[in-house]
Amino acid sequence: MGRRARAAAAVLARTPTAVKAGALRAAAAALRADEAGILAANAADMARGRENGLSPALLDRLRLDPARLEGVAAGLEAVAALADPIGQVVDRAARPNGLELSRVRVPLGVVGIIYESRPNVTADAGALCLMAGNAAILRGGSEAIQSSRAIHAALIEGLRAAGLPEDALQLVPVTDRAAVGAMLKAAGLIDIIVPRGGKSLVARVQAEARVPVLAHLDGINHTYIDAAADPAKAVALAVNAKMRRTGVCGATETLLIDRAFPEGAAVVKALLDAGCELRGTPEIQTLDPRILPAGDEDWDTEYLDAICAVRAVSGADEAIGHIAAHASHHTDAIVTEDAATAERFLAEVDSAIVMWNASTQFADGGEFGLGAEIGISTGRLHARGPVALEGLTTYKWVVRGTGQLRP
Amino acid sequence: MGRRARAAAAVLARTPTAVKAGALRAAAAALRADEAGILAANAADMARGRENGLSPALLDRLRLDPARLEGVAAGLEAVAALADPIGQVVDRAARPNGLELSRVRVPLGVVGIIYESRPNVTADAGALCLMAGNAAILRGGSEAIQSSRAIHAALIEGLRAAGLPEDALQLVPVTDRAAVGAMLKAAGLIDIIVPRGGKSLVARVQAEARVPVLAHLDGINHTYIDAAADPAKAVALAVNAKMRRTGVCGATETLLIDRAFPEGAAVVKALLDAGCELRGTPEIQTLDPRILPAGDEDWDTEYLDAICAVRAVSGADEAIGHIAAHASHHTDAIVTEDAATAERFLAEVDSAIVMWNASTQFADGGEFGLGAEIGISTGRLHARGPVALEGLTTYKWVVRGTGQLRP
Repeated sequence: MGRRARAAAAVLARTPTAVKAGALRAAAAALRADEAGILAANAADMARGRENGLSPALLDRLRLDPARLEGVAAGLEAVAALADPIGQVVDRAARPNGLELSRVRVPLGVVGIIYESRPNVTADAGALCLMAGNAAILRGGSEAIQSSRAIHAALIEGLRAAGLPEDALQLVPVTDRAAVGAMLKAAGLIDIIVPRGGKSLVARVQAEARVPVLAHLDGINHTYIDAAADPAKAVALAVNAKMRRTGVCGATETLLIDRAFPEGAAVVKALLDAGCELRGTPEIQTLDPRILPAGDEDWDTEYLDAICAVRAVSGADEAIGHIAAHASHHTDAIVTEDAATAERFLAEVDSAIVMWNASTQFADGGEFGLGAEIGISTGRLHARGPVALEGLTTYKWVVRGTGQLRP
Repeated sequence: MGRRARAAAAVLARTPTAVKAGALRAAAAALRADEAGILAANAADMARGRENGLSPALLDRLRLDPARLEGVAAGLEAVAALADPIGQVVDRAARPNGLELSRVRVPLGVVGIIYESRPNVTADAGALCLMAGNAAILRGGSEAIQSSRAIHAALIEGLRAAGLPEDALQLVPVTDRAAVGAMLKAAGLIDIIVPRGGKSLVARVQAEARVPVLAHLDGINHTYIDAAADPAKAVALAVNAKMRRTGVCGATETLLIDRAFPEGAAVVKALLDAGCELRGTPEIQTLDPRILPAGDEDWDTEYLDAICAVRAVSGADEAIGHIAAHASHHTDAIVTEDAATAERFLAEVDSAIVMWNASTQFADGGEFGLGAEIGISTGRLHARGPVALEGLTTYKWVVRGTGQLRP
């Protein structure tokens, strides 16, 4: 599969934008045309999942309905409408000897996607890879295999309609763990692996891969409420950052409150009233009797739930220090009206995303205007934060001369 | 060492350009001031190397003299004069909800450099890391340990003069293989490993590392002489690309000559007269009786010597196909006066550097105007081709809001 993907990638690398976009639009049409077939395949997966005792949360991720399927089709069209990064000139320079240098964006090559029960990843991730000129090898979870196959068939129809090689988007036919192992060791055939799923999947991929991995493990995110925070913004941002959706990686997990901020009680009350369990230091506990005591492990926990650790700090430096010690370097925010303090926080907090007076829940490729994302990287190399089309590219140096010899 | 480097990196990340440059200039002054001590340390390394039977080539790499040491000092000053990438805004955007996004260059963090007998790497690589705001852990080879220590002492003087933490540039005190193994597994403490040395070192690093590696293995580079090549340029470029220095990674190793190019005999004659051994296909052998037969392995060999494989091809497509099958994707060039053919070659050859009418020996960070390079990457992720200051950075997303909540 890797060798066939490599051959297809060479074709995709020189495929014009309109052809790639046409393939995605044709795939969207095929998805809509085969709605009944895809939903039937999904129903079979759901039935098997219920038999196998999948949790309600997993079953919900697995489930497709006409609205969700329309969302998948519309997603393909949205990716087709994105600006094509391939061929963009990153920078150029002329050398004194007359050589003209430019760096030009080119596809990464072959992208391996390893995912679990969400069948829509087949389409979403496949579309992003294709639009950036890459071939993809898609390995979905066994729970969703029939749904994934049905969606994959629509992608293949799109490729065929555009005259592109079917090997550009290959679905691994088997769902055993050995297939994942083979992908993780396919250095030279797969250029990058993107795991999409829970912590145990991502951890296994990072531990075993001999191929570069684009991954995030945890989103232990902080919102720091500075002494100079606007109280109304502080309350609203804390509640939105924690409670809008508690299961997303951009959710705030720890709230740091400056001792000099006068409205700490209002912030914790709003969170408690919104149904959030708070675990605080003794000083924080005095703000509201409903606050439970925090243990050491709370500062290093990604709850992904309606639970929040709360700590009092003496100013931005202590907050920055706490974040340096405990953050997963995903997304961290400051709430303040003091621009100097904000800029210091933005400069010194070493996370993929740093925010001033904004909800950490904005950590999302769509919200950043990237159109879609293949993932959020907490690694430091290649791409950081939300990764979209550009993160699926690399560059090459193009040198144009007139016969220059190196002295 | 990793933890101390991490702490120093946090300081360096917010160190102004002038202070970093001042440290490097002070280190250059210290190198010059301690010339006698450094040369004495180097003489001790050389004496031990001779006792241990090091090859003349290794001894030459190890050797310092006043001119080479002045080159090292001047190199530090050259890095100090480079534009500081830290804080540069990669791009910015305003979202419809009023959020202001920017991507800002920040240091990678902690860079591990693993090198062999060239003591100057201690200064060159250390300086690049420091100027890009990174801490470095330098692990030099045992043959050069006294020279490296003496040079390292000058770097430390520079750090001290600038008021920067000495842990910013740490030299691993031991030179056993276990130290390398520990560095390769220090995920979370070291952000990237840069091996500087021969193939066996780089191969070991790539095989064992659990930390991302910036490395190139081979430079199996091609120069393709098209039917429409200017004969004089073809002769001069072939000789320069192969023979200027045969031991560098940018040297051409395989020459592809279009059957329709009328002056193939002149090209091979010039190479042979320059002292190059040629190994050709039977068709190429008819051009000159001195040409030896090429075997299959010649197309996949990095000679790093005055040897060149030569093959006849029928046009650019066959050349591009040969390159796709055999190149190490380092640097490949076309010689032609036909702009359309050249642009096709530049677009379709998937190498870190592609060239038109220029010598592959220009593959070098200095020649590209990058000031200096930490290495040439043949990997596809993060940085490709010559890697200088920018390649030692990453970015973070900075989001400035006015209290925006995510719907």
